[in-house]
Amino acid sequence: MTPQSEDFSRWYIDTIKKADLMDYTPVRGCIVFKPDGYELWERIQQAMDKRFKETGHRNAYFPMLIPESFFEKEKEHVEGFSPELPWVTEAAGEKLEEKLALRPTSETMIGHMYSQWIQSYRDLPVLINQWANVFRWEKRTMPFLRTSEFLWQEGHTAHADEEEARHETLQMLEIYREVIEQELAIPVWMGQKTPSEKFAGAVDTYSVEAMMKDGKAVQAGTSHYLGDNFAKGFDIKFLDRDNKLKFVHTTSWGTSTRLIGSMIMVHGDDKGLVLPPRVAPTQVIMIPIGSGKKREIVLNKVDDFVTDLKREEVRVRTDVRDETPGWKFNEWEMRGVPIRVEIGPRDLENNQVIIARRDTGEKLTVPIDQLIETVKGLLNEIQTNMYNKALQFKAAHSHVHIDTLDELNKHVIKSEQDQVIAGWVLAGWCGDETCEAKVKEETSFTSRNIPFEPPLNKETCITCGQKAQHTVWFSRSY
Amino acid sequence: MTPQSEDFSRWYIDTIKKADLMDYTPVRGCIVFKPDGYELWERIQQAMDKRFKETGHRNAYFPMLIPESFFEKEKEHVEGFSPELPWVTEAAGEKLEEKLALRPTSETMIGHMYSQWIQSYRDLPVLINQWANVFRWEKRTMPFLRTSEFLWQEGHTAHADEEEARHETLQMLEIYREVIEQELAIPVWMGQKTPSEKFAGAVDTYSVEAMMKDGKAVQAGTSHYLGDNFAKGFDIKFLDRDNKLKFVHTTSWGTSTRLIGSMIMVHGDDKGLVLPPRVAPTQVIMIPIGSGKKREIVLNKVDDFVTDLKREEVRVRTDVRDETPGWKFNEWEMRGVPIRVEIGPRDLENNQVIIARRDTGEKLTVPIDQLIETVKGLLNEIQTNMYNKALQFKAAHSHVHIDTLDELNKHVIKSEQDQVIAGWVLAGWCGDETCEAKVKEETSFTSRNIPFEPPLNKETCITCGQKAQHTVWFSRSY
Repeated sequence: MTPQSEDFSRWYIDTIKKADLMDYTPVRGCIVFKPDGYELWERIQQAMDKRFKETGHRNAYFPMLIPESFFEKEKEHVEGFSPELPWVTEAAGEKLEEKLALRPTSETMIGHMYSQWIQSYRDLPVLINQWANVFRWEKRTMPFLRTSEFLWQEGHTAHADEEEARHETLQMLEIYREVIEQELAIPVWMGQKTPSEKFAGAVDTYSVEAMMKDGKAVQAGTSHYLGDNFAKGFDIKFLDRDNKLKFVHTTSWGTSTRLIGSMIMVHGDDKGLVLPPRVAPTQVIMIPIGSGKKREIVLNKVDDFVTDLKREEVRVRTDVRDETPGWKFNEWEMRGVPIRVEIGPRDLENNQVIIARRDTGEKLTVPIDQLIETVKGLLNEIQTNMYNKALQFKAAHSHVHIDTLDELNKHVIKSEQDQVIAGWVLAGWCGDETCEAKVKEETSFTSRNIPFEPPLNKETCITCGQKAQHTVWFSRSY
Repeated sequence: MTPQSEDFSRWYIDTIKKADLMDYTPVRGCIVFKPDGYELWERIQQAMDKRFKETGHRNAYFPMLIPESFFEKEKEHVEGFSPELPWVTEAAGEKLEEKLALRPTSETMIGHMYSQWIQSYRDLPVLINQWANVFRWEKRTMPFLRTSEFLWQEGHTAHADEEEARHETLQMLEIYREVIEQELAIPVWMGQKTPSEKFAGAVDTYSVEAMMKDGKAVQAGTSHYLGDNFAKGFDIKFLDRDNKLKFVHTTSWGTSTRLIGSMIMVHGDDKGLVLPPRVAPTQVIMIPIGSGKKREIVLNKVDDFVTDLKREEVRVRTDVRDETPGWKFNEWEMRGVPIRVEIGPRDLENNQVIIARRDTGEKLTVPIDQLIETVKGLLNEIQTNMYNKALQFKAAHSHVHIDTLDELNKHVIKSEQDQVIAGWVLAGWCGDETCEAKVKEETSFTSRNIPFEPPLNKETCITCGQKAQHTVWFSRSY
C-alpha cells in the first residue's frame, strides 16, 4: 500500500480496495458498496434514524424520477443542478413526452407533494425524512466522497413561520454534529456557509466540516433554511390561525455515504483502516495460536470467549483460517478492527491473553478472567481516544494567525515545498464575494464555513485588508 | 368509501388514500409512500433483515444503472425484462455512448461483479442481499401492488454446487413464509411456479402465494434457483478443491412493497384498514372523553397509561384533537389501529376503561389496574386471530373438487353472476404448456404454484383429462 505521506489519495484508494469496502463498476463513477463498506453505512443510518425519530420526524419515500418542468420552478436550483443531471428519455420502447431526471435531491418533487398536502396550520409542521439513492453526474469522482450515484438521507420539513423553520435547521445540524462526533469520532466545525457556497435555492446553508489527515476538508453534512423560495416555486400555502393564506417556510438537510470516506481519511494510517468501535462491523478479532492437540483446547476457550462477548453485544469474530498469526495480524490491522485478541497454549497455561489495540498499537497482557471487562472498557476508551487524537490533529493543523493573502500564499507554497500539511486557515472576510473568490484563485483554498464559535475573531479581511464582517475557515477540500 | 362487495379495487384505492398510506404523483405509475405506508415497509424490512443476517447474509449496494449490453448476456432474461425498461440516454448535457437501464432486478450487474470477486472455492458461498428501488414500466399500475418504481430486497447468492444452491433457494422461501405468516398474519401456499410462470432466466422458481379478500392471488415473494445460467452468461467460475475450473450455481430471491398492498387486501374491511399488531405503526389509540374540569383528570390518567405502555414497548398514541369521540372512533378504525382505549370521567369513577378491538369490533370493560396486561395480551390475541381468520377465508374459497375446464368455466361464470368470490381452484395438470394456456384463455385463471403440500393430489389434467403430472393452484391474480 502507498504510504499516506507519499500520496494520500492513492493511499485512500489502495486502502478501501484492499479492505474490501468497495469496488469499481463498468458504470462511470458508480461503485459497489461491498458488505464491510455498506455495514458502516447501516450503522450510520441507525444512529441518524434513531435521532430523527426522537425529534418527531418520520420516513417516507418519493419517486426517484423528476419531470424536467419541476426544475424550472426555482431559478437558482435549476442553475445549480442542471449541469449534473442524468435523464430518462425513453421507457418501454417509447420516447417520453417529458424527460425525467434522476433526482440529485428532492426539494422539487417533495415541494410539489407538500403543496397538495398542506392546506391549514393544522397540517404543520410536516417533518419528513427520506433514505434514498441520488445522482450527480460529476466529472471527477472519488469512491464514497463523490460518486455519480450515492446513498443519503434528505430531510424536508415545512413550518408555519421562519422562527420554527430556522430552529429546525439548526436542530438537525446539531444532530449531525452529535452523530459524527460521537459515533464516527470525527470532530467538526459547525457554521454557516458563505453565500457563494450555499445550496442552490437556499436562504442560508449551515454545515459541519471535518479535517482529513491530508489537511483537506470534507463537508460532512448540510442543513438549509430555504425560506419561502420553494414554497413560492411550488405554491405551498396554508390558511393560518388568523385566516390569512401564507407561504410555508421549508428546510432541508442531508448526510450521505461520503461520511464513510471521511471516517477513513480521518482515522486511517499506513497499516490501513482504523475504525471507531461504535461503527466497526467487527469490533474484536480473536486469533487462536498454536497447532496440534493443544489447538483444540485453545479453540474451545476462544469459543467460550466469543459466546461471552456476544452476550455483551460485542461484535466478535474468530479467524481460524490456515494462515500464520503474523499474516492474520496484518490482515485485521488493515481492516481496522479495533481490538485483536491473541490466545495460544502458553497463554492459557499462564491464565492470560494478549490484547492489541489498533488505535495505539499497544499490546496488553490481561488475566483471562478479566478479558470480557477489559474488552468492554477498551472499546469505549478507543472510541474516546480516536476522537481526541483527531481533535488534536485538527488543532495542530488549524492556522489562526495568517492575516493577509500574501501570508496565506507563502504558507501554501511553503507547505507544498516542505511536504507539510497545509491544513485550515482562519481568516477575516469583509463579506465581498470578489475577495472570497480571490482567495480561491490565488491559493486554491475555498471557504468552508463561518464557525459559530471561532477560536478567535478576525479584525481584517484577508484579501482587501478592510474591516472583517466574518471569521471564516478556508482550506482545500474534497 | 366504496364497500368491498361493490367494487373491491375501488375500496382498496379509497382506503389507502383515506388512511394516508400513499399518494399519486405526476410521474406515471410512481407513488409516494407516505409515513404510515412507509412505516409498514420499515417493519417488514426489520423482520426480513434480521432473518437474512441470522442465516449468514450481508447487505451490499450495487449501481442502479445497468449497461444495455449486460442484458444481452442471458437470453431469457433480456426477453423477459426488455419490454419494461426505462433508459437513461443522456447525462450532464451529453448523449451517452451506451444506454443505461434503470434496474428491473440486478442479476446482470451482480453477476458481472461476482465474476470479478469469485476465483476459488474459498470465496464461496457469496451471500449478499440488497435493499433498493427498482423499475418496471408497466402498462397497468396499482398502488403498492404494481408501480413503475417500487422498493424491494433482492438476495443474490453464489454456491459451489447445485445442492447447496437449491437448499439456499428453499431456505429463503421458508423465511418469506415465516415473516409473511407471523408478522403480516397472511397464510400462504408455498410451491413451485410452472415453467411458463418462472423468472426470466431461472431454472426453477418458487413462490409464496396469498389470497386476497376478492379471491385473487398475490405472488408475495419468489425465490429462484438460477443454475449456471447467469454464471455462464457472466463467466462466474471458480477453481474447486479438485483443481478444476467450474461455474458457480446462483440463486436470487425477492420481496417488495407489494407486501403492503397484500396486507391491506387480506385484512381490510368496509370500515378501512385492519393492521396486524406486529407491524401497525400505532398499536393502541387512547381516546380521552369528557370536557371541562374533569378532562384534566382524564388526561393525566391517560398520560400515565401511555408512559406505562411505552415502557412495555407498545406503540401508543393519544388523540387530543378537538373532535367528537364518534368521529375519532371512525378515524382510527379506518386507519386500522388494532386497539382503541376509551377513558372518560365516569370510567375513572368506576375504576374501569373501555377497550375496543379493531379485528372483531368487540368492546370490553376492563378494570383500570388490568389495562396494561390486557392490552399486551390482546395484541398477541389479535395477531393470532387475524391469521386464523385469513386462514379460514382461504380455506373457504379454495375449491378442490373442480376437475374439468367445463366445471371451472361454470364455476367462474356462476361466481360472476352471483357476485360470489371465485377464489382459487386446485387442478390437475398434465405438464403441457398449451393445457395451462387454455385455462387462462377460457377462464382468465392462471397457475399460481404447484404447492409442496397440496390438500389433495389430483389425478387428471383439468384441460385434457390425461394423467396429471402436477397438482396446481389456479386463480385470478394481481
